[in-house]
Amino acid sequence: MITTDILIIGAGPVGLFTVFEAGLLKLRCHLIDALPQPGGQCAEIYPKKPIYDIPAYPEVMAGDLIDNLMKQIEPFKPTFTLGESAVTIDETEDGQFIVTTDKGSQHKAPVVAIAGGLGVFTPRKPPIPNITEFEDKGIKYIVKDPEEFRDQKVVISGGGDTALDWTIYFAEELNCDVTMVHRSESFRAHLDSVQKVMNMAESGKLKLMVNSEVKALNGNGKLDEVVIKTKAGEVFNEKVDTWLPLFGLTPKLGPIADWGLEIEKGAIKVDNATDYRTNREGIYAIGDVNTYPGKLKLILCGFHEATIMVQSAFKRIHPNKNNVLKYTTVNGVHGFEE
Amino acid sequence: MITTDILIIGAGPVGLFTVFEAGLLKLRCHLIDALPQPGGQCAEIYPKKPIYDIPAYPEVMAGDLIDNLMKQIEPFKPTFTLGESAVTIDETEDGQFIVTTDKGSQHKAPVVAIAGGLGVFTPRKPPIPNITEFEDKGIKYIVKDPEEFRDQKVVISGGGDTALDWTIYFAEELNCDVTMVHRSESFRAHLDSVQKVMNMAESGKLKLMVNSEVKALNGNGKLDEVVIKTKAGEVFNEKVDTWLPLFGLTPKLGPIADWGLEIEKGAIKVDNATDYRTNREGIYAIGDVNTYPGKLKLILCGFHEATIMVQSAFKRIHPNKNNVLKYTTVNGVHGFEE
Ligand SMILES: Cc1cc2nc3c(=O)[nH]c(=O)nc-3n(C[C@H](O)[C@H](O)[C@H](O)COP(=O)(O)OP(=O)(O)OC[C@H]3O[C@@H](n4cnc5c(N)ncnc54)[C@H](O)[C@@H]3O)c2cc1C
Ligand SMILES: Cc1cc2nc3c(=O)[nH]c(=O)nc-3n(C[C@H](O)[C@H](O)[C@H](O)COP(=O)(O)OP(=O)(O)OC[C@H]3O[C@@H](n4cnc5c(N)ncnc54)[C@H](O)[C@@H]3O)c2cc1C
Repeated sequence: MITTDILIIGAGPVGLFTVFEAGLLKLRCHLIDALPQPGGQCAEIYPKKPIYDIPAYPEVMAGDLIDNLMKQIEPFKPTFTLGESAVTIDETEDGQFIVTTDKGSQHKAPVVAIAGGLGVFTPRKPPIPNITEFEDKGIKYIVKDPEEFRDQKVVISGGGDTALDWTIYFAEELNCDVTMVHRSESFRAHLDSVQKVMNMAESGKLKLMVNSEVKALNGNGKLDEVVIKTKAGEVFNEKVDTWLPLFGLTPKLGPIADWGLEIEKGAIKVDNATDYRTNREGIYAIGDVNTYPGKLKLILCGFHEATIMVQSAFKRIHPNKNNVLKYTTVNGVHGFEE
Repeated sequence: MITTDILIIGAGPVGLFTVFEAGLLKLRCHLIDALPQPGGQCAEIYPKKPIYDIPAYPEVMAGDLIDNLMKQIEPFKPTFTLGESAVTIDETEDGQFIVTTDKGSQHKAPVVAIAGGLGVFTPRKPPIPNITEFEDKGIKYIVKDPEEFRDQKVVISGGGDTALDWTIYFAEELNCDVTMVHRSESFRAHLDSVQKVMNMAESGKLKLMVNSEVKALNGNGKLDEVVIKTKAGEVFNEKVDTWLPLFGLTPKLGPIADWGLEIEKGAIKVDNATDYRTNREGIYAIGDVNTYPGKLKLILCGFHEATIMVQSAFKRIHPNKNNVLKYTTVNGVHGFEE
């Protein structure tokens, strides 16, 4: 059993920054995340896209934001359980919590900070019976490192911004032979991206098939071809290296919804007038996962919430100690030995 | 009369970031500050010191933080009235505010955001009758650009960290001939800085006079010498280029305290459960200048407060428009033409 001061569920930007603020108060943190890497939405959905509203960063790539946060918290030696989902929570007699993951690992702490964002991400999968057979063997639902697709023959399905943006990027930057397949003729996306894809299709820089869908998959242990059917009934077999069905990710609050916490519109209700506490003492919710009047699902707001929250955690953990705010500029940052 | 959407009093980090968040909502801002430059405490008190708790900045000089904020808000073309203090506020019949400065300039806006920090900074001056005669003519209460003192003969008075830090810096980095004068034998400062100054004094790198005070000033239009008196009654006349009495800055909320706002311990009470409004509708207070249960006087908290506050300002300014939060990553940053 892993024991710590603050058990953080979710290693997105908000969970990560919590480690820093807790560390300043000499509290240790352990983080659990369902994803294989820290960084939450920033690392999983848009690592290569710029964010413009992080204070004092006129522009920062989401992935770099996470790298900088990881560097900032390094002195406080956070520990991670990655690739596991927090599933159940139990309260011990001495007022501590034990959180168990889907893989059975257990974590104990007097304070739990839920920084679960929009929940555990699950890609929307098209209903093709043998699709799971080719996952990571020619099918990817998310583009993490675009470079791995350089020079490939790729089919991209979807009609939203993600599908359009990657179609443009793969054709322009990665020298890919791209076919974009979209079920209808209208797109739920920025007009200029749609325009651009149309223009690129006209000038032969990519292939665009509207009113079409990938309906079947062929291959032996690895995806070899996709079968595209048009509304008119035509069928095309296309050899591919990779098929990217980019129909979006649906996040699910999941098992946390059953932890006895007050839920409103899929988010955990907290008291923003005090310390982002939930209705269960010792359990806080910060970042995208919480809600309160006027809540903005922004990274910079989560940073503030985390900072306020750890002050309250400190009082719970050290009821008899007085914590005086010290400026980092004056006091420095004193990390943990190990 | 200058008119704008949000009139911001105080161009510290929090006032500056407000411009950005307002700009995203297409609201324009004008800032008033008593100091001659933007940046508040960061620019005035510790521009060359590192801050460690700005999220995603493992370390950033306070001055660079301000530079980055200035760059970030540039697209939204903020305008400034610098070197003037906001003194009075009047409400017009149509529910707008007119703020008048000590120099008589007037500014009108439907929303006022007070980001006045700890107030207007005033150096603690030693009680020497003719001291004002030499201000900026050989006397400086604040070190802004250390380079201007290179190679000078300098006397530094004070026993706190600022006095010690600059004593070390002037002797080590600026090739100054430094005499440090301190009233007692004990210092209210970090032990290692005290130790360092003692060691440097012993090895002749600077002169340290404890139990001593500067008691009189001589010069003709420009400071020429300081008269130092020891507790034992000895008197020394020291020729100087510059005397730096570094006894600290006391910030004063000043005239804002008379604006009919609820004040608690020198800060303006706001409602943190909603939008950092004061008890006067249309007037908000954000950053160090405000207080609420659990308030932390940290820069990152002010950033959040500013962000929440401008949403409420938007509703006041455009009661019939609906504002939907858009991610900067998705929507970009669309600055103003001029
Ligand atoms: C395309 C896009 C653009 C954006 N642009 C901006 C922008 O410009 N500015 C801005 O401020 N914000 C932006 N955002 C929003 C921003 O990414 C989120 O506000 C931020 O990621 C929230 O951080 P978080 O740490 O609260 O949650 P998340 O980043 O969502 O991280 C939560 C983590 O918790 C994990 N988790 C959830 N439940 C469990 C569980 N039961 N067990 C284990 N792990 C769990 C998840 O796997 C996830 O890694 C954007 C979002 C997207 C998708
Ligand atoms: C040595 C030191 C180290 C610090 N270290 C850290 C740290 O590590 N981390 C951290 O988060 N914070 C730190 N702080 C605190 C941080 O600097 C403040 O939280 C921050 O500056 C507050 O920003 P602000 O914009 O609210 O106010 P300020 O920076 O105080 O700016 C307020 C501005 O308003 C102006 N003003 C006030 N009244 C009027 C008026 N009536 N008319 C016109 N102008 C007016 C003032 O001149 C000033 O420029 C430190 C502070 C000091 C002094």
